Amino acid sequence: MSAKDISIPWEERPEECKDVMWRYSSNPIVGRYDIPSSNSIFNSAVVPFGDGYAGVFRSDNKAVQMNIYAGFSKDGINWDINHTPIEMKPGNTDMIDSDYKYDPRVVFIEDRYWVTWCNGYHGPTIGIAYTFDFVDFYQCENAFLPFNRNGVLFPEKIDGRYAMLSRPSDNGHTPFGDIYISYSPDMKYWGEHRCVMKVADFEDSAWQCTKIGAGSAPIRINEGWLIFYHGVINTCRGFRYSMGAAILDSENPSKVLYRTQPYLLAPNETYELTGDVPNVIFPCAALCDGEKVAVYYGAADTVIGLAFGYLDEIVAFTKNNSL
Amino acid sequence: MSAKDISIPWEERPEECKDVMWRYSSNPIVGRYDIPSSNSIFNSAVVPFGDGYAGVFRSDNKAVQMNIYAGFSKDGINWDINHTPIEMKPGNTDMIDSDYKYDPRVVFIEDRYWVTWCNGYHGPTIGIAYTFDFVDFYQCENAFLPFNRNGVLFPEKIDGRYAMLSRPSDNGHTPFGDIYISYSPDMKYWGEHRCVMKVADFEDSAWQCTKIGAGSAPIRINEGWLIFYHGVINTCRGFRYSMGAAILDSENPSKVLYRTQPYLLAPNETYELTGDVPNVIFPCAALCDGEKVAVYYGAADTVIGLAFGYLDEIVAFTKNNSL
Amino acid sequence: MSAKDISIPWEERPEECKDVMWRYSSNPIVGRYDIPSSNSIFNSAVVPFGDGYAGVFRSDNKAVQMNIYAGFSKDGINWDINHTPIEMKPGNTDMIDSDYKYDPRVVFIEDRYWVTWCNGYHGPTIGIAYTFDFVDFYQCENAFLPFNRNGVLFPEKIDGRYAMLSRPSDNGHTPFGDIYISYSPDMKYWGEHRCVMKVADFEDSAWQCTKIGAGSAPIRINEGWLIFYHGVINTCRGFRYSMGAAILDSENPSKVLYRTQPYLLAPNETYELTGDVPNVIFPCAALCDGEKVAVYYGAADTVIGLAFGYLDEIVAFTKNNSL
Amino acid sequence: MSAKDISIPWEERPEECKDVMWRYSSNPIVGRYDIPSSNSIFNSAVVPFGDGYAGVFRSDNKAVQMNIYAGFSKDGINWDINHTPIEMKPGNTDMIDSDYKYDPRVVFIEDRYWVTWCNGYHGPTIGIAYTFDFVDFYQCENAFLPFNRNGVLFPEKIDGRYAMLSRPSDNGHTPFGDIYISYSPDMKYWGEHRCVMKVADFEDSAWQCTKIGAGSAPIRINEGWLIFYHGVINTCRGFRYSMGAAILDSENPSKVLYRTQPYLLAPNETYELTGDVPNVIFPCAALCDGEKVAVYYGAADTVIGLAFGYLDEIVAFTKNNSL
Amino acid sequence: MSAKDISIPWEERPEECKDVMWRYSSNPIVGRYDIPSSNSIFNSAVVPFGDGYAGVFRSDNKAVQMNIYAGFSKDGINWDINHTPIEMKPGNTDMIDSDYKYDPRVVFIEDRYWVTWCNGYHGPTIGIAYTFDFVDFYQCENAFLPFNRNGVLFPEKIDGRYAMLSRPSDNGHTPFGDIYISYSPDMKYWGEHRCVMKVADFEDSAWQCTKIGAGSAPIRINEGWLIFYHGVINTCRGFRYSMGAAILDSENPSKVLYRTQPYLLAPNETYELTGDVPNVIFPCAALCDGEKVAVYYGAADTVIGLAFGYLDEIVAFTKNNSL
Amino acid sequence: MSAKDISIPWEERPEECKDVMWRYSSNPIVGRYDIPSSNSIFNSAVVPFGDGYAGVFRSDNKAVQMNIYAGFSKDGINWDINHTPIEMKPGNTDMIDSDYKYDPRVVFIEDRYWVTWCNGYHGPTIGIAYTFDFVDFYQCENAFLPFNRNGVLFPEKIDGRYAMLSRPSDNGHTPFGDIYISYSPDMKYWGEHRCVMKVADFEDSAWQCTKIGAGSAPIRINEGWLIFYHGVINTCRGFRYSMGAAILDSENPSKVLYRTQPYLLAPNETYELTGDVPNVIFPCAALCDGEKVAVYYGAADTVIGLAFGYLDEIVAFTKNNSL
Repeated sequence: MSAKDISIPWEERPEECKDVMWRYSSNPIVGRYDIPSSNSIFNSAVVPFGDGYAGVFRSDNKAVQMNIYAGFSKDGINWDINHTPIEMKPGNTDMIDSDYKYDPRVVFIEDRYWVTWCNGYHGPTIGIAYTFDFVDFYQCENAFLPFNRNGVLFPEKIDGRYAMLSRPSDNGHTPFGDIYISYSPDMKYWGEHRCVMKVADFEDSAWQCTKIGAGSAPIRINEGWLIFYHGVINTCRGFRYSMGAAILDSENPSKVLYRTQPYLLAPNETYELTGDVPNVIFPCAALCDGEKVAVYYGAADTVIGLAFGYLDEIVAFTKNNSL
Repeated sequence: MSAKDISIPWEERPEECKDVMWRYSSNPIVGRYDIPSSNSIFNSAVVPFGDGYAGVFRSDNKAVQMNIYAGFSKDGINWDINHTPIEMKPGNTDMIDSDYKYDPRVVFIEDRYWVTWCNGYHGPTIGIAYTFDFVDFYQCENAFLPFNRNGVLFPEKIDGRYAMLSRPSDNGHTPFGDIYISYSPDMKYWGEHRCVMKVADFEDSAWQCTKIGAGSAPIRINEGWLIFYHGVINTCRGFRYSMGAAILDSENPSKVLYRTQPYLLAPNETYELTGDVPNVIFPCAALCDGEKVAVYYGAADTVIGLAFGYLDEIVAFTKNNSL
Repeated sequence: MSAKDISIPWEERPEECKDVMWRYSSNPIVGRYDIPSSNSIFNSAVVPFGDGYAGVFRSDNKAVQMNIYAGFSKDGINWDINHTPIEMKPGNTDMIDSDYKYDPRVVFIEDRYWVTWCNGYHGPTIGIAYTFDFVDFYQCENAFLPFNRNGVLFPEKIDGRYAMLSRPSDNGHTPFGDIYISYSPDMKYWGEHRCVMKVADFEDSAWQCTKIGAGSAPIRINEGWLIFYHGVINTCRGFRYSMGAAILDSENPSKVLYRTQPYLLAPNETYELTGDVPNVIFPCAALCDGEKVAVYYGAADTVIGLAFGYLDEIVAFTKNNSL
Repeated sequence: MSAKDISIPWEERPEECKDVMWRYSSNPIVGRYDIPSSNSIFNSAVVPFGDGYAGVFRSDNKAVQMNIYAGFSKDGINWDINHTPIEMKPGNTDMIDSDYKYDPRVVFIEDRYWVTWCNGYHGPTIGIAYTFDFVDFYQCENAFLPFNRNGVLFPEKIDGRYAMLSRPSDNGHTPFGDIYISYSPDMKYWGEHRCVMKVADFEDSAWQCTKIGAGSAPIRINEGWLIFYHGVINTCRGFRYSMGAAILDSENPSKVLYRTQPYLLAPNETYELTGDVPNVIFPCAALCDGEKVAVYYGAADTVIGLAFGYLDEIVAFTKNNSL
Repeated sequence: MSAKDISIPWEERPEECKDVMWRYSSNPIVGRYDIPSSNSIFNSAVVPFGDGYAGVFRSDNKAVQMNIYAGFSKDGINWDINHTPIEMKPGNTDMIDSDYKYDPRVVFIEDRYWVTWCNGYHGPTIGIAYTFDFVDFYQCENAFLPFNRNGVLFPEKIDGRYAMLSRPSDNGHTPFGDIYISYSPDMKYWGEHRCVMKVADFEDSAWQCTKIGAGSAPIRINEGWLIFYHGVINTCRGFRYSMGAAILDSENPSKVLYRTQPYLLAPNETYELTGDVPNVIFPCAALCDGEKVAVYYGAADTVIGLAFGYLDEIVAFTKNNSL
Repeated sequence: MSAKDISIPWEERPEECKDVMWRYSSNPIVGRYDIPSSNSIFNSAVVPFGDGYAGVFRSDNKAVQMNIYAGFSKDGINWDINHTPIEMKPGNTDMIDSDYKYDPRVVFIEDRYWVTWCNGYHGPTIGIAYTFDFVDFYQCENAFLPFNRNGVLFPEKIDGRYAMLSRPSDNGHTPFGDIYISYSPDMKYWGEHRCVMKVADFEDSAWQCTKIGAGSAPIRINEGWLIFYHGVINTCRGFRYSMGAAILDSENPSKVLYRTQPYLLAPNETYELTGDVPNVIFPCAALCDGEKVAVYYGAADTVIGLAFGYLDEIVAFTKNNSL
């Protein structure tokens, strides 16, 4: 069961709009208080599940403890999100310590759903778990030593091994960060680390000159793998997060074929410009039925927004406006 | 004459609201330009006075000079604020130097009103003054050496001595800060300093993990002393200030009995999310008639807001959601 | 042809307003997306030209590359801005390298229009160009070594030499900065550097205590030269930019006669409080017909606003509220 | 029993030397390993005691735990230092917590010896203890809230109250610091804080432009109070500590009468230029018999040195070379 | 062939010395210019090899490029070091990129010698290579993503897997750092990361309160594994590196049994207190014949020193002085 | 009268030495206390003068005030330095303000000696003066706006204009810095600024990867212009300054033909490794008789050293070891 078989969330491009991607007119689709104890619900990931959708949601509660919650939806727009966070069971390890969990991604590989997130173990690193039903989750060994964030799995094995994008960092508001890829035969031991994509020069593409990180799980297209990613510029009022796209080589995804010099989406709506962390657009998931694309993104570290586009237009734009 | 004898500002909880505390629907109650020369009026304190209320207000003028002003109100909501700042007379000292004054608190003890504020004397420290009528103010010795902020007096002597909460700091946008208590036999000499309350661990309660400071004067309740305080988290866009509550031991207030893990109020309204310093809720005073509570808070370092709650619900919430 | 001969943009002071300067009710006059490829259009400069106006506009495109664009207007309010940036031709040099261009100013001297801007040549410095028609622009030698910003030319030679205000800085989000003056016999070699105006003490005028920079080209008045300038305060959420005015001595403009202790305009409208860099008012040009003044300012590093005032009131206010 | 009645350590000025103060030729007088468990012995204080001398010594052990030790000497040069640190007994308080102790000073007032030091209580502050015999020490309330260092008591009450110099600071390698005075009726409550002496301008006296702190207990002279203090300059290789002198007003010691613009002693010998913290001269005590002066100083945070001078020459130099 | 079968470098404890470990009287054993092109030779590792010793040496050349060189010695004291750096051949990977190499360690496991070092691959991480003869070296996959330093392998497999200590860090002069352990079935994929040992509290053992890193390869003893490690304190003149020892559990080496609270060796000799980076003792190797121990350490980032001790004394000291 | 006509200071290369440049065996040639009031004498410049030599010396006095002093010598080794600093007279300007003066250079052009130095005018910039006799000095306009250091004039006009190398910077211990060239028709107005030489990549030549600055006045050679310059690396103990050489194009000196990848001289002697700022070698002048070269350099910001080399060997080394 993949996104290609079901109808994904969609709204046509507004008449006056000439952009490659546009926002859903009823954004935000999830409000900050939609879980009773929550302070904010944002940076979250969804996948097709059964005859609808399931997702893993980041919610910070009113103590601003960061955790992840399962949720379900018929249409991908209206969501029932559990009121209690996911409780992990031991997967391939008993060491499932976690000071906090945030910024989840979800991907289906072979026979199950894999969740990755930023896991607090002596600092941020990449947590991994699998589930068959979004009810029972089995936590595995952390992929890496601290400090790391934005771990995103590929939806297929590559050359017989699992593959993951991530962004090594430090343990604060890291002012740098590039995207790497790593491989694993068994979701326990990781190696063969390669650099994939670095920040841009300020002169070339300043919106992504401070740090970048993978957003949605890669989408297989004819040209290779399409990913949506976030880029950051450091202004005199702090970081500003925007969204771009890149196309990676099919067989060797550490090779970047194209990458948008302009951003695809940058903070402009009130729910993006105000909130707990203003001026943040942070994509964590994308649905694609082969023709249309729906991107889920965190807005202002407070709520969830949805943006749409046609796959061929996005790919063409990425190729024609490559850095 | 105390708050118990008069009607305090009040508006019932909105129907759809399930929060312990809620905002006044006509917020902000004081606008940024309500003094002709002002740039902003915020972080201010009020007390019952005569058959109404009096207060001490922080206003930064259009040169952004920080000073404190007296004001009066019949209902605690509509205020007449003087257009010129308070001019201090010598109290228990002739040394009443002050480069600036900001963030006042007011409390009635025995026979007079005591004002504390952040006083500029070779850097920020705690200024003290008393008044009988909010017309003549008598400035006393600063309580401490620099650097200190958020000095809040208890409304009663404890074991025969005045007691003050404060937050030692440095002289910039201090990125750390805990609450201490100090005692004085005479409002001149201070000692017996004890640590009361530290920032929370990031994992436990991130909204208060960077620094905390006392807000309103402690309110005597059966369980001890109730205080509203601010907590700060350092985001990648700067500090965000929220409000929580704590209950201190009656006889030994350096002992924290309970303290809210979740915040009670965090920036969400437009007048809190935009302004000179967005995302700031900074409580400086609370009125309580024994049943109802009205908290005055600065919003976005620009205007003044009012929030309400039932005392027993706030106490129960604090006990049931303690860190 | 000067501003005195034509009608400048104008709107009377609103009835309830008692401020010296007030905003145009239809602000912003230029939107962030008014150039198809743009992310933002702000910090820009205009001058009388022909029977209307011409201008040089800063626009960051969607790759957040910073460049300057020519534009034309009949009324100074509705603008036709070119969709492609200015392409420079060699003026008094062949070395016209430029990693980026931003924050332009324009002034007419003798027989032509001179444009200055922040030019990226191994870091920010002051770029200079001239044009007769706003079609062909001839770039000259950079005025100074890096690092410098906010270069503003006087509209007349002083003692036979060109004169320029500027603000030496470093190459980041400079946390300091004062205004200097320099002279040149030929727009190629610069010298006789003098300090003009320093930041204010925090206690005296905090809105301008972190850094200051010249805004509009100086306007000749009876008392000397009137300039609008920006001042910055560093809050715990980053820099906040406001606008003040100063009057420099007619014959020796390194001598400051008066300078506003209060600001004239500070961020308060939604288009100033939200955007790519909230809480920024950044003046780059002023039109004056001898009686009325119209100031063009960048708002929130996103759009352009217009503010008005009577010349004699502004001058009187500056003299009566001098630091 | 005071220093005037006994012979203090002394060595005549070397023939070729023209400086006001000169080093003891057998420096260092205490080596870094003179306590078996020690890593270093430095920044220490001595006083006349019985028919000889007693002292309190800072020694960091080989775990680099900082503590203070009692020691005794017949001649002030050869010292027997205890091998175990001072164990405090409760004085005017039971709260004698101490994470660490360092940089002691000692002074005799009325009937007993008072020791002050930098005491670790939620950060550095000023610890106080008294002893009659250098065997039993009774710890009192800390003088101040954190953060503070270099607390130095006057050897007499002033206007019936104890008086202490100190240097408010932060909790790291503080890059700023001025000298203040505070008073106490009872060695428990402290108040009436006044600024005494600030860092010098870089242009005037750069060796003391970053921070300054009181060194030896004040010595009563005809002109008022003579103190030796340290001054710090921040070089591109870190802090450099040198020694100067100041004369404070007799009745109002917050008033500085004279203060050396040149330093009296700066790092130049091998035991000052190399060690755990190179380029540090840090005076903590001075003996004076009315004619001759012997200053004890820590060298390179590793050992103890001794420097000599004639009182009248030092006073004359301070008056003739005052900042 | 192990160290137990041959005589290791040795010099008896000096008579007056009561320390557990003491320096070789002819230190430094390798000078900074012993390779003609070198600026410094330090932080290097040696092992028994044939009937003598082999080693891998860090040398920075006069362009201050960091690289590693093979060397040979009959007695472990007098060394012939190659004049050209090691050229790596592909081992279990073709990706043998390296911007720089420094701080090597060497250990013999089963049938070959394994070298680890700090490898420049988009920042510092842990490089791995093996050799049979110290002539041909075969480089393997880097163990981890950047940023990491001080990778040290165990000389035996543990539970069938290779085991490595390392210190996750950032990419500058990292001001923090703890020791972790990771496992690999094949020297290619690494996982099951566990925290082993953290910095000490400042109050408990300040010499190791800023960062720590493994030094020599673990030595199997009855109690488990003995390692020598470095600890760092941040002084106001920069970092100071000292050496301690720890004993890890035999079967679960992430468990620390004992760890020296005092250091074993700290900078005190001229060749340790002066040089390119003064006050650094940095152990990288230890030889042990079952009775005696010889530790090789870098001194002042400039030369190599040798220190000695009796194994049973070192173990007893570590157990009796454990943090 | 040039260096070619007189014998320059010289000592043959020691037998065992294989370096291109070597130190004078009687270094330092000027001690730190050679002026009675001085704390240090270093970073100074000399030229042939009459039948001997004259120089301008940086001396910090015991208040650590920085100033420059004239001095004279028969042999270039033994110096008589004035005990009072140079008092400037107005040259081409009356504005000869100076908060401090340091790091002078001297060069003879056409008919007089030109002195440049780091001049304190609202921060560091380049001061200029001329003298005919080293008795009367005439100060000219500062060359640039602040912030700038290390201004070094060419000994000939280039294309009819004066030429100066300098290093734009900020106003602290600048952690970056490249070398630029600027031209002037009249020593008053400066322009046509070009970048000459940037810091090296860490991997290529780390000793010069943090900042670089011109040292001696350029020497005309067949290949163009030879300069000695300093390079800085930022270690965990602060900056380390070493010396390299570069050859600039004869007609267009903004073009670097060759530049040493290895350093020529780096701190190694005790007077370089200890002092006020350890590990500093800072060249400010070079004498050349066409065959032999003598370089004067500041050592450890404390004293002056002398180093020698053969011109042809230095040039060959620079060409053969170019970055």
